[in-house]
Amino acid sequence: MEGNATSNTHPHVVVIGGGFGGLAVARELAHTDARVTLIDRRNHHLFQPLLYQVATAGLSAPSIAAPLRQILRGQPNVTVLMDEAIGVDLDQHTVKLARGDITYDALVVATGATHAYFGHDDWERYAPGLKTLEDAFAIRRRVLVAFERAERENDPAQQQAWLNFVIVGGGATGVELAGTVAEIARHTLPREFRRADPRRANVLLIEAGPRLLPAFAPDLSDKARKQLEKLGVEVRLGTSVTDIDAQGVMLGDTPYAARTVLWAAGVAASPLGRLLGAPLDRAGRVLVEPDLSLPGHPDVFVIGDLASVTQSNGQLVPGVAPAAKQMGRYVAQLLKARWRGTTVDKPFRYRDDGTLATIGRMAAVAQFGRLKLSGILAWWVWLIAHIAFLIGFRNRLVVMLDWGWAYWTYQRHARIVTGIDERDRPRE
Amino acid sequence: MEGNATSNTHPHVVVIGGGFGGLAVARELAHTDARVTLIDRRNHHLFQPLLYQVATAGLSAPSIAAPLRQILRGQPNVTVLMDEAIGVDLDQHTVKLARGDITYDALVVATGATHAYFGHDDWERYAPGLKTLEDAFAIRRRVLVAFERAERENDPAQQQAWLNFVIVGGGATGVELAGTVAEIARHTLPREFRRADPRRANVLLIEAGPRLLPAFAPDLSDKARKQLEKLGVEVRLGTSVTDIDAQGVMLGDTPYAARTVLWAAGVAASPLGRLLGAPLDRAGRVLVEPDLSLPGHPDVFVIGDLASVTQSNGQLVPGVAPAAKQMGRYVAQLLKARWRGTTVDKPFRYRDDGTLATIGRMAAVAQFGRLKLSGILAWWVWLIAHIAFLIGFRNRLVVMLDWGWAYWTYQRHARIVTGIDERDRPRE
Repeated sequence: MEGNATSNTHPHVVVIGGGFGGLAVARELAHTDARVTLIDRRNHHLFQPLLYQVATAGLSAPSIAAPLRQILRGQPNVTVLMDEAIGVDLDQHTVKLARGDITYDALVVATGATHAYFGHDDWERYAPGLKTLEDAFAIRRRVLVAFERAERENDPAQQQAWLNFVIVGGGATGVELAGTVAEIARHTLPREFRRADPRRANVLLIEAGPRLLPAFAPDLSDKARKQLEKLGVEVRLGTSVTDIDAQGVMLGDTPYAARTVLWAAGVAASPLGRLLGAPLDRAGRVLVEPDLSLPGHPDVFVIGDLASVTQSNGQLVPGVAPAAKQMGRYVAQLLKARWRGTTVDKPFRYRDDGTLATIGRMAAVAQFGRLKLSGILAWWVWLIAHIAFLIGFRNRLVVMLDWGWAYWTYQRHARIVTGIDERDRPRE
Repeated sequence: MEGNATSNTHPHVVVIGGGFGGLAVARELAHTDARVTLIDRRNHHLFQPLLYQVATAGLSAPSIAAPLRQILRGQPNVTVLMDEAIGVDLDQHTVKLARGDITYDALVVATGATHAYFGHDDWERYAPGLKTLEDAFAIRRRVLVAFERAERENDPAQQQAWLNFVIVGGGATGVELAGTVAEIARHTLPREFRRADPRRANVLLIEAGPRLLPAFAPDLSDKARKQLEKLGVEVRLGTSVTDIDAQGVMLGDTPYAARTVLWAAGVAASPLGRLLGAPLDRAGRVLVEPDLSLPGHPDVFVIGDLASVTQSNGQLVPGVAPAAKQMGRYVAQLLKARWRGTTVDKPFRYRDDGTLATIGRMAAVAQFGRLKLSGILAWWVWLIAHIAFLIGFRNRLVVMLDWGWAYWTYQRHARIVTGIDERDRPRE
């Protein structure tokens, strides 16, 4: 067993998950006596807000990801371990890892969320979601290969099915994917195909609810829909997907032939939440105390997308990067106060610094309290904010360069297909 | 059947393979009456001379690859099809593709080479080679994960086995990989690990022959060895690998524990060569006529690494990018002359513009006829030549930027592990 908990005066903080929340805990504990062990299945932190750009061939993966141990190398009290947490023994203060156990004085669980198919797990095969770099490569492969197959297809109906794209879910990810796929079809590819004109592509964005981007004010939802339609996306609100298979989707009782379906509809909390034995909300998030600790376990905290925290206005803290960062800093400050022998009296409070969603070329919506923006101005705010929050000078520079290049040429530099298209794999 | 061969006056040239050779044929046939169909399994042309840099996390994949149809989009007489050639019917002038057949008036086969294990195909699982982007990702994953595993390992012997790297084969690829892995261990990673010091890594370069880089003059081979040793690589010449498994390699009768083994030893021609029914050399290359045509089939040509062409000095034309490009241009010019009703009397002649191999930071060897360079000067020539031959302005700019950044910081920006480490997959 590693990380003996009581033999020295340096408290051992184990953080599971190297996303925005986990990283904020580790950074906020710099220059303290604490020993921090950050555990992640992957070797990298991922800047998820730009993941859709990797999926749509605008950015390379290394531009939006950085090795966790490189980010934290200047912090000698942090040890990074690439390993997978498979259980927690709250009585023994021990985390069970795939390659051994580790004990803690304080534990922070920040393993985030994954996509959910509402009981239709068989849809995943036909409609991949977007949470990891592997997901992004799979979506990139599907979208690019679909145009290749259309070019190779002689039957007109089959060809059109390869040129039909359905995106399920009208939240930020669905809107971003739909806008970008439409731009690729209309502007990036046309001159390159000789048989199947990419401009014949249909991009359908399906949302079961009454409006897009429910996190925004209704008038911004409406503006987002209009901007998407201008980019060539067909938006269908109040429409439910009742089935998905290799040939397309069922919209209510109406089949729609589309060989490429992308899933941006459902999010479920990481399965590690269930293993903590605490009450969960409907989406599987852990119902934490106002100080983000696990009920009955003041040394265990759950933060980020995995935590279910209700604000004073009755709404849940949203599953966004700024909220995860704020939770991480809050927990680290609470621990520091506790080690000093004092306490943090205030419960966690989410400070909403604004919400942004991009739609496509010079199209975005933004909401800062009462200030609402849309169109070009919102797009510039979105662009500058995302460059600013990227990690690493090299990445900021290259992303700016790639965006500038893409803007002027309509080209997307990462149009590289690797790996196997799932649609070619025979079903077992 | 597509590509009706005789119904119009535009000859139909089918090119299989979008590497340096195939692309040169298509480009040289711009502004002709010919219809060109370029077929490749992949959607991209790959700049293979820099593939080792993707494998060692220095460059992102899209920086050294570009979609074939983007490269050729300005050439309206070219149709690019992403498909796989599975057979050729020479009598019917037909290529069998995975998704349909296609007829030709002239056929150019340029499918290159892959790695070979000299009858030990089971070694591939333990010692991946480097020919495709997928190979590069697999090697990147193995090298980066090995250091992660060492950090996670408590047993000192096991830890050292994770820190031992064996590269089999002392040609250009082996030398490049060995030099870069040593640099990563000595300079990039040390500050980032807390338990397993990367400086304890051993990088072993094994060559069965008496010297490294046999394509160069013997004194340059010697200089390459000395430069590698200065970078921290242990070079073993005249040493044969007799077995490889998950634990390491057998060097003659001596086992050497190493969890990471990379294969840079053998090259075999693409299997399509065998399907042409022509005589092959020992490495499976097609023995072509002096005009690169298939014996008995003046309308079928084999170029690039798949062709076995003996020069007037008795030596084979080497399997390098400039030779493939020259062959591609030669065949296109021969076809153009034939369509004009004239002939090209001269057989193909390889013009050696020089050979370059990089070893590591400011270390390389270069040979231009009698002029031999090594060290910093050769390294600059290598660097400038490789930037110049990259396709695309964006790629040149970003590669320069990434190299400059890597040079000053010793960092490698693409240290992102994705996919599954084969060493974690249970053997069937």
